[in-house]
Amino acid sequence: MSETKMMQIKLAERPTGLPDDNTFEIAEVDVPTPGTDEVLVRVEMVSLDPAMRGWLDDRPSYLPPVGIGQVMRALGVGTVVASNHADVAIGDRVAGGFGWQEYAPMMGKDLQPIPPSAPTELALGPLGMTGMTAYFGLLDVGEPKEGDTVLVSGAAGAVGSIVGQIAKIKGCRVVGIAGSDEKCAWLEKDLGFDAVINYKTTEDMYKAVKEACPKGVDVYFDNVGGPLLDVVLAQINLGARIAICGAISAYNATDPVPGPANYLSLLVNRGKMQGFIVFDYAPRYAAAVEEISGWIAEGKIQARYDVVEGLENAPKALLRLFDGSNSGKLLVRVAAV
Amino acid sequence: MSETKMMQIKLAERPTGLPDDNTFEIAEVDVPTPGTDEVLVRVEMVSLDPAMRGWLDDRPSYLPPVGIGQVMRALGVGTVVASNHADVAIGDRVAGGFGWQEYAPMMGKDLQPIPPSAPTELALGPLGMTGMTAYFGLLDVGEPKEGDTVLVSGAAGAVGSIVGQIAKIKGCRVVGIAGSDEKCAWLEKDLGFDAVINYKTTEDMYKAVKEACPKGVDVYFDNVGGPLLDVVLAQINLGARIAICGAISAYNATDPVPGPANYLSLLVNRGKMQGFIVFDYAPRYAAAVEEISGWIAEGKIQARYDVVEGLENAPKALLRLFDGSNSGKLLVRVAAV
Repeated sequence: MSETKMMQIKLAERPTGLPDDNTFEIAEVDVPTPGTDEVLVRVEMVSLDPAMRGWLDDRPSYLPPVGIGQVMRALGVGTVVASNHADVAIGDRVAGGFGWQEYAPMMGKDLQPIPPSAPTELALGPLGMTGMTAYFGLLDVGEPKEGDTVLVSGAAGAVGSIVGQIAKIKGCRVVGIAGSDEKCAWLEKDLGFDAVINYKTTEDMYKAVKEACPKGVDVYFDNVGGPLLDVVLAQINLGARIAICGAISAYNATDPVPGPANYLSLLVNRGKMQGFIVFDYAPRYAAAVEEISGWIAEGKIQARYDVVEGLENAPKALLRLFDGSNSGKLLVRVAAV
Repeated sequence: MSETKMMQIKLAERPTGLPDDNTFEIAEVDVPTPGTDEVLVRVEMVSLDPAMRGWLDDRPSYLPPVGIGQVMRALGVGTVVASNHADVAIGDRVAGGFGWQEYAPMMGKDLQPIPPSAPTELALGPLGMTGMTAYFGLLDVGEPKEGDTVLVSGAAGAVGSIVGQIAKIKGCRVVGIAGSDEKCAWLEKDLGFDAVINYKTTEDMYKAVKEACPKGVDVYFDNVGGPLLDVVLAQINLGARIAICGAISAYNATDPVPGPANYLSLLVNRGKMQGFIVFDYAPRYAAAVEEISGWIAEGKIQARYDVVEGLENAPKALLRLFDGSNSGKLLVRVAAV
C-alpha cells in the first residue's frame, strides 16, 4: 500500500435545518492498520441517502446518531487491500458501512461480498440497500396484489423508481409523484409508470391524485411525508396499505411538522400505515438480490445514477437530495478503480 | 298488538360540534305493519355508542350518514311481535339495527337471534357489537403476545374495559387510561388492570405513560385519538401495533384536529397503525361470542352498565359519552319486558 495519509469527512456540528458549511469538516489522518480479524478496504464509492439526514440529529432512532467528530456514516463499495480475517482476501470486492473516508478499517464479519462482475453502481443501487428497501417495503409492507393501484412519492428517487418497476412486474397500476417534468417523463416513458404527477407544477394535488388514481389508492409507498400523505389518506381504498419508507419533506424542518390529520381514514377504510427499516430483512437479502438480478437481466428494472466525483464533494452533494436536483441514485466516487 | 301509535326519534338537523336540543326531534307515528319477509320488533333496549356521532355528519364513511328526517340509527335488542318471515317466530328475542323507535320493521335476514336466557345488557355489551369490537380489534389488529404491554385509552368505556380484560387473559401487562379516580379504581381493583392513569388529573401524560409502561408500549388500543396518540407514538416498542378503534376526543371538534405528528415513530420502530370496523368480522362473531361467554362464565370478563330509562331521554344520554359522565356500557331502556 503506497498511501499513508487519507481523507475523512467528520461531523463537526449538528445542523439545524439543512446541513451547511459548518456541518462537516475534512480531516487528513493516517491510513489505519487493520487489527485482529479486521480488514482494510479501499473505498471506491459511497451512497448518499435521505436517511443520512436523520443520523445527524441527536435523538434516539433505529441507529445511534453519528457523534460529533466521528466519520460520517455511509454505505459504500470498495476493495480489500489488507486482511487479517481468514475468509476475506486482498482484492475482494465488498460492500459495507465504510463511511466518508478513503480507507475503512472493518471487521470481516461486517462486509458483504460483491460478485467481481457486478458494477459498483448496481451494488449500491438496485442490488444494494436501495433495491432491498424498495423490494421489502413494497412487497412485505405494501403487499400489492395484481390490479391494485400503487402510488409512489419520491418516485424518481433511487428507491421510488425501483418500487414502481417492481409494482409493474406485479401487475399493478403504478402512479408516480416526482418534482420535474423530466423526471416524470422518465418514469412514464422509460420505466412504464401508468401515470405521473409533477407536484411542483400541480396546484391541486388532491384532484391530481384523484385523476391519476380513478379507482383510489390501494398501496401508497411514501418517501415524502408532509401534506401529501394527508392528500393520499383521503383517497385510500378499503384495506389500503401505506408503507412509510421516509418523510424527506420533514427531515430538515426547523418548526414542528404537523401529523397526518386524515389518519382516521385508516379506521373508516380499515387501512394500515406501517413503517419499516430495511436492515430487518437482512436474512432475506440474498434471495431478493437473486430475484432483482433476474429482473435486471430481463430489462424489467432500470436505474439511473448521478455520480459525484471526489469525496470532498460529498457534503454539498448530500444537499441535492433535499432540493430535488439529483436524478436517480446519488453516489460519490471516492477512488477510480 | 294493542298499541297503534309509537315514538320515534329522528335526526332534525346536523350538529356542528356537540349535538344539542335542535339535533333530534321526537315524532309520534303509526306502528307499521310488516311487509313481505318483514317482521316487526318491539324494541326493548338500544345501545348508545361514540360511533353514532360520526353517523350524524354528512360525509362518506363506513356507513352512509343518517339522513335528515330519518330515524336515528342504533343497535338494539327486542322481541318479535309480528312476522312474515318463515324463520322468525313471534316471541323470538333478536338483535339488530332497530334505531331510536319503539317498534322496528325489519327484514328477517337482518336480525341476529339471541338465546332466551341471555340478559339484554349482555347481548348489547360483551356479547354484542361492543364485545366483538374489543375482541377482534385487540386480537386481530393488536395481536397481543404474552408479556406484551397493552395500553388502552377510554379504558373504562364499554369497549376499552373488555379490551383490557381480554389482554389480561392473554397474559399481557395491561395499562388503562380513564377520566376519573372512580373509573381507575374499578379498572385496577375489579378488572385487574396492572396500572391506570386518570388523564383528567395528570399534568404530564408522557411521564405518566412512561411510568405505567416502563418497558414501552407493544399494543395501543386507541379509542380516543388526539394529543394522547402522539404521547403514545413516542413510546412504542419495536414492532408495536396501534389499533385505531375510534377518536372520541375529535368527534365533536369544530376546528381542524391536528394529526399525530409523531407518526414517524412507526418508521423508526417498524410499527403499524391500523384501523378496523367490527362489521368486517361478522363471519366470526359466533366463535367470538362462544369464547367470550366462556370467559364470562369463568368470571374473567365483567361489565358495568349505565341504563337510561325512556327512549325520549336518548338524545341527552348520548352526550354523556362525550363528557365522560357515563360509566360502562350506556343503554337506553325503550320498553320494560
